[in-house]
Amino acid sequence: MKRLFYILLIALVYPLSLSVEIMQGQNAAKPRARDLGIPFEGSPGPLNAITDINGIEIGHATLISGDGKLKIGEGPVRTGVTAVHPRGKASSDPVFAGWFSLNGNGEMTGTTWIEESGFLEGPVMITNTSSVGVVRDAVIAWQLKQFEKTMQPWGLPVVAETWDGWLNDASGFHVKPAHAIEALNSARSGQVAEGGVGGGTGMVCFEFKGGIGTSSRRLSDRQGGYTIGVLVQANFGLRPQLTIAGVPVGKEITEGSFRSRETGSIIIVVATDAPLVSHQLKRLARRASMGLARTGSTSGNGSGDIFIAFSTANPGAASAPNPVRIEMLPNDRMNPLFDATIQATEEAIINALVAGETMTGIDGHTVIGLPHDRVRETLRKYNR
Amino acid sequence: MKRLFYILLIALVYPLSLSVEIMQGQNAAKPRARDLGIPFEGSPGPLNAITDINGIEIGHATLISGDGKLKIGEGPVRTGVTAVHPRGKASSDPVFAGWFSLNGNGEMTGTTWIEESGFLEGPVMITNTSSVGVVRDAVIAWQLKQFEKTMQPWGLPVVAETWDGWLNDASGFHVKPAHAIEALNSARSGQVAEGGVGGGTGMVCFEFKGGIGTSSRRLSDRQGGYTIGVLVQANFGLRPQLTIAGVPVGKEITEGSFRSRETGSIIIVVATDAPLVSHQLKRLARRASMGLARTGSTSGNGSGDIFIAFSTANPGAASAPNPVRIEMLPNDRMNPLFDATIQATEEAIINALVAGETMTGIDGHTVIGLPHDRVRETLRKYNR
Amino acid sequence: MKRLFYILLIALVYPLSLSVEIMQGQNAAKPRARDLGIPFEGSPGPLNAITDINGIEIGHATLISGDGKLKIGEGPVRTGVTAVHPRGKASSDPVFAGWFSLNGNGEMTGTTWIEESGFLEGPVMITNTSSVGVVRDAVIAWQLKQFEKTMQPWGLPVVAETWDGWLNDASGFHVKPAHAIEALNSARSGQVAEGGVGGGTGMVCFEFKGGIGTSSRRLSDRQGGYTIGVLVQANFGLRPQLTIAGVPVGKEITEGSFRSRETGSIIIVVATDAPLVSHQLKRLARRASMGLARTGSTSGNGSGDIFIAFSTANPGAASAPNPVRIEMLPNDRMNPLFDATIQATEEAIINALVAGETMTGIDGHTVIGLPHDRVRETLRKYNR
Amino acid sequence: MKRLFYILLIALVYPLSLSVEIMQGQNAAKPRARDLGIPFEGSPGPLNAITDINGIEIGHATLISGDGKLKIGEGPVRTGVTAVHPRGKASSDPVFAGWFSLNGNGEMTGTTWIEESGFLEGPVMITNTSSVGVVRDAVIAWQLKQFEKTMQPWGLPVVAETWDGWLNDASGFHVKPAHAIEALNSARSGQVAEGGVGGGTGMVCFEFKGGIGTSSRRLSDRQGGYTIGVLVQANFGLRPQLTIAGVPVGKEITEGSFRSRETGSIIIVVATDAPLVSHQLKRLARRASMGLARTGSTSGNGSGDIFIAFSTANPGAASAPNPVRIEMLPNDRMNPLFDATIQATEEAIINALVAGETMTGIDGHTVIGLPHDRVRETLRKYNR
Repeated sequence: MKRLFYILLIALVYPLSLSVEIMQGQNAAKPRARDLGIPFEGSPGPLNAITDINGIEIGHATLISGDGKLKIGEGPVRTGVTAVHPRGKASSDPVFAGWFSLNGNGEMTGTTWIEESGFLEGPVMITNTSSVGVVRDAVIAWQLKQFEKTMQPWGLPVVAETWDGWLNDASGFHVKPAHAIEALNSARSGQVAEGGVGGGTGMVCFEFKGGIGTSSRRLSDRQGGYTIGVLVQANFGLRPQLTIAGVPVGKEITEGSFRSRETGSIIIVVATDAPLVSHQLKRLARRASMGLARTGSTSGNGSGDIFIAFSTANPGAASAPNPVRIEMLPNDRMNPLFDATIQATEEAIINALVAGETMTGIDGHTVIGLPHDRVRETLRKYNR
Repeated sequence: MKRLFYILLIALVYPLSLSVEIMQGQNAAKPRARDLGIPFEGSPGPLNAITDINGIEIGHATLISGDGKLKIGEGPVRTGVTAVHPRGKASSDPVFAGWFSLNGNGEMTGTTWIEESGFLEGPVMITNTSSVGVVRDAVIAWQLKQFEKTMQPWGLPVVAETWDGWLNDASGFHVKPAHAIEALNSARSGQVAEGGVGGGTGMVCFEFKGGIGTSSRRLSDRQGGYTIGVLVQANFGLRPQLTIAGVPVGKEITEGSFRSRETGSIIIVVATDAPLVSHQLKRLARRASMGLARTGSTSGNGSGDIFIAFSTANPGAASAPNPVRIEMLPNDRMNPLFDATIQATEEAIINALVAGETMTGIDGHTVIGLPHDRVRETLRKYNR
Repeated sequence: MKRLFYILLIALVYPLSLSVEIMQGQNAAKPRARDLGIPFEGSPGPLNAITDINGIEIGHATLISGDGKLKIGEGPVRTGVTAVHPRGKASSDPVFAGWFSLNGNGEMTGTTWIEESGFLEGPVMITNTSSVGVVRDAVIAWQLKQFEKTMQPWGLPVVAETWDGWLNDASGFHVKPAHAIEALNSARSGQVAEGGVGGGTGMVCFEFKGGIGTSSRRLSDRQGGYTIGVLVQANFGLRPQLTIAGVPVGKEITEGSFRSRETGSIIIVVATDAPLVSHQLKRLARRASMGLARTGSTSGNGSGDIFIAFSTANPGAASAPNPVRIEMLPNDRMNPLFDATIQATEEAIINALVAGETMTGIDGHTVIGLPHDRVRETLRKYNR
Repeated sequence: MKRLFYILLIALVYPLSLSVEIMQGQNAAKPRARDLGIPFEGSPGPLNAITDINGIEIGHATLISGDGKLKIGEGPVRTGVTAVHPRGKASSDPVFAGWFSLNGNGEMTGTTWIEESGFLEGPVMITNTSSVGVVRDAVIAWQLKQFEKTMQPWGLPVVAETWDGWLNDASGFHVKPAHAIEALNSARSGQVAEGGVGGGTGMVCFEFKGGIGTSSRRLSDRQGGYTIGVLVQANFGLRPQLTIAGVPVGKEITEGSFRSRETGSIIIVVATDAPLVSHQLKRLARRASMGLARTGSTSGNGSGDIFIAFSTANPGAASAPNPVRIEMLPNDRMNPLFDATIQATEEAIINALVAGETMTGIDGHTVIGLPHDRVRETLRKYNR
């Protein structure tokens, strides 16, 4: 009966999305930041992605349609939704989590309960600003369908955003429940599409095309062999600020810049399999600031630089009816995780830039992709 | 053109709400807590309501339809939306604000930006848990229509909730954008409907019918003559906890109780015309905890006890292009405001109870209204 | 060698304290609040004290000397130091901890590291405002002597205070390192001296004599059988605010009142043997506010109402070199602990009042002890 | 009479300090970081120091004595105290302030009241870990003497620390009240001594000699013409992390390194004359993290990275008896201040390193000063 309701619900909203193209960006052959010879610190995992952590699944719904002059409600559309499932879409088992706001001109719903409970009880969703609500309620509907319940009688989904109004009809409310559900259901482990996909579709970073980026670090066995994975939705920065591995790349590559004022944001998701509890994960979330700083950001007044960190260790910790035995890493073994978070955040941002491809959106606004050759050239100039 | 879009948008969503009753509860003849002879401390303003503060407007959209067994998506429906406009619906001028979470098992969107900026940039909306998203996005749409812009290019609305799943088809997603817009547009100054109206429609408090309540305090001229107004959406408490003016009323009135476990929440909005800046308003928000404590609450694990405070003083402070002169009350003159906040919070909660009328919702669940005579009787027993 | 140094250090500072009386208040025959028939909620442990939790030791150093007119540096002296050892004075094993500031016009050192690490690494000390520094450094010296090291190469002691300048030569710096060490070394389990002892010596509460108070609650076996213990240093409140078990006692007992303006503070220590981690202990600390509110406090601008909570469960959790298995209570089993914290906080405050005995301090200021008969009488009047 | 007491107090403690050398480091001819050709961003004020902000005075007390093997309590001594007076030592007028802890393994007393009140009510003191207490109480004594009162009846001084136990007899408690008072009284405007002076005497940074550093930025007139000044006590970092203007200097200059594990800290004081209120100053404090990140820090578990920001604008704001008119900069004009804070923090840290001179302390531990020529060479290698 309940099932029938959801089938009808989907049937109702799905057609609305037929006019826009839902695509899973996944061009695996594209070079990544490392392929340009950038000297990043630390050792990435096999995929150099957040999915190097066992169980994590990423899904994107990408909406691209229309061209030309903005007609609010009609387009052009350059937006989407990204879903991060900490334990995969089939699991409703919460994870320990913590969050941090470096500059809070943005939204991440659900953080009050993370702060209180120490747990993240579902996926982390990332979309554009005016779609936070529709995605939030859709997550509740999806959880009711997927698990026949939310974690508690009430669901408090985590949905974050950055603003894509330079390329997208941001006030047109093009994201529908079906897109959130598409991102949730299409999520998978393995390689992660980067650049202008999912929530990152219309995003701009250092006045280059930005969007989704990811990276990971694997600690040595002596350090515990843990993995840190980072996924960002990068939509911030003025050109002259851009710094790659310490090199002032943005001051050298001036072509295609168009802004006089920082208005962007970044959402950073930090994941690990190290057994950290919530107050320790908040420490990781705070470290994302330092990776962001390495790219040249100064976290402007207009930015919603909001970070969440979670650990996939300790399955079952939140749902036990009785006192539960959990594993906790001592605080004084956290330094390698701090380093890894900072390094992976830096590289995830640069990966978002390297994956970005030139895009034209509303009113003919064009944002160029980071020219790879110019990056190599600049690194050479500074002997890196 | 843009206007046309909105007309179409409204046209699209409005019919969805025709099957439910939108009513503005406003039975002014109903007795309030004071009328029962409860010895509250302090002096209320003329309306004993949040609207004693000049400019504040309150609107409710109330959805009541259907009876009998729950069919998710069909009803019965006992829910709604309440809107609090700090400077009235015609103004987009932000107010200084602060917030506090006593127990964060709930949602109040937009708080990250309040914390960062020190300002609340639009209305405070209160609804049920699964409708936070739809209301949030509707506020953005309404602001774009009303002011042809949000405050910034991106809007970050404040929407809070409590869970009405005991009486309402809470997973049925019955609140539509039109209901949010109805609450926003119907808001007015003057008397405020209390009890089972607006966001409070399906709420339960101390196992009596709860919902919306309000109260105010006016400081003496020597204390500055400021007004404190409080509005609550009360949905918390076990019967034996209920304390009124120190009297253990809940232990005496046991009829109609039905719960073994606290799962409720309360949203508290504190308003003042005293010239407070954001860190001072956070202090007021924290004091709401103490008014709540006086009613017997222990803020259980399941509660989303989240409070926001704002000041209507200093119009224009947020929108000036240059350094702006604002007025600030010295910290050491805040004590009367602390007292007033605590007193008005306590009375607003009891007002919600006194206004509550017996309601039957899903699956025949019936929640009785607080029996006024039994309250008078119990006060007499304890010589109050 | 190092030992010799400390012997010399003690030898140096000890004589300084000979001119003042160090006494351990411990008059066990004194009635406590319960003995007056006050109807508190919940079931206390055997001692109705924080020491009902296994391992906790409390020590007081009490300084009372001189009479008559204040001569800064000479007296009269009415002050002291109280030490709370979470696992007893012989243990340097940290405990999980969290803290909360309801109104931060006060000092509790060491909280930044508690917030970061999730642990409390030594005793909690409570003294008067101008002695926080001397006590803090003395704790480091004591730890170096007692354990031949602090927990880390640097020690970050937790020292809190309230201001005793109404009765004590508060600017005379009468507390010396030896007094802190006396409190630390004399600590023991068992009954806890209350009222004008230790850090509470010169404190005033609701314009009655205040000081140290304690209480406990034991949960039922079904609730886990855990104990909550609370110890307060109570130095706050205006007479008319005083509420005992909901009865407006302070409005009835007006004799001996002398203030027009709230300037006091309260330090609250919440302890438990329930296996809570740091973010959960912060939740307990926040609940202390609600127990405080029940006594009539409105937490005035001048108050340093700062609370710390710790758990004695999980010994060894902070010192393990490797990931450690700890036990954690599920969040949704915390409600009885919330109730117990609120109840024990309320009773500990009333215990401090009931134990308070009339004291005359500087400039002939006299503060009367709460008259027990008048309390009984007032409770009868209100049928409690 | 009171005066006599203080004279006696000073007379008592002063001789204790005669055995150690109190010196005001002030070798103005020493090169600073800019003199090495490091390409910092932004425009400094005339002194490139925190004292470019009108009214700010800095004082140091430096304790250097003894050589050879550590005898706890005897030395060798390499420590001190630094005082920052926001409005000069002759003023007790509070300043708006905010603080932030990036990693809280350290102490900054007084922050609870800053958070609550929005104001800093006296100097910021920086010393070594085990001297926080003695300095704190000495500030109260000094305020009582200097102003015949503390700001409130109780004083809540701000004292921060980093740990100098690699070079100094840190457990010997060599800092006495007289040293704190010396730092307070000797404070002056003008050039600021850097490197191994004051609280920075025994500090180590990136395994080079660290300590006190300062820098400033002056905004353009169009940006308001405000000044940002930063003063740091730098005691953190592993050699390979050191990054100067993006260049991996620490990986190139490996001589004299001696650590395998990060245990250090940094205290950062950010000052401005821009009219910011407390929540805005917290935003500045948070930005210090990003300047720190640019130098290569990852803010290890052992670090007390605690930052405070204040504004000298709005004199009299805290002491008015009535609502006061203050000036506030709009949030959306803060970006240049964010940039300036980050830039000045980065340069202040490098200034501390450049000013550091090789020092030998306890047990013959030697820490080398940053070799200036090797820095120039490394910058050239990377074409900077």
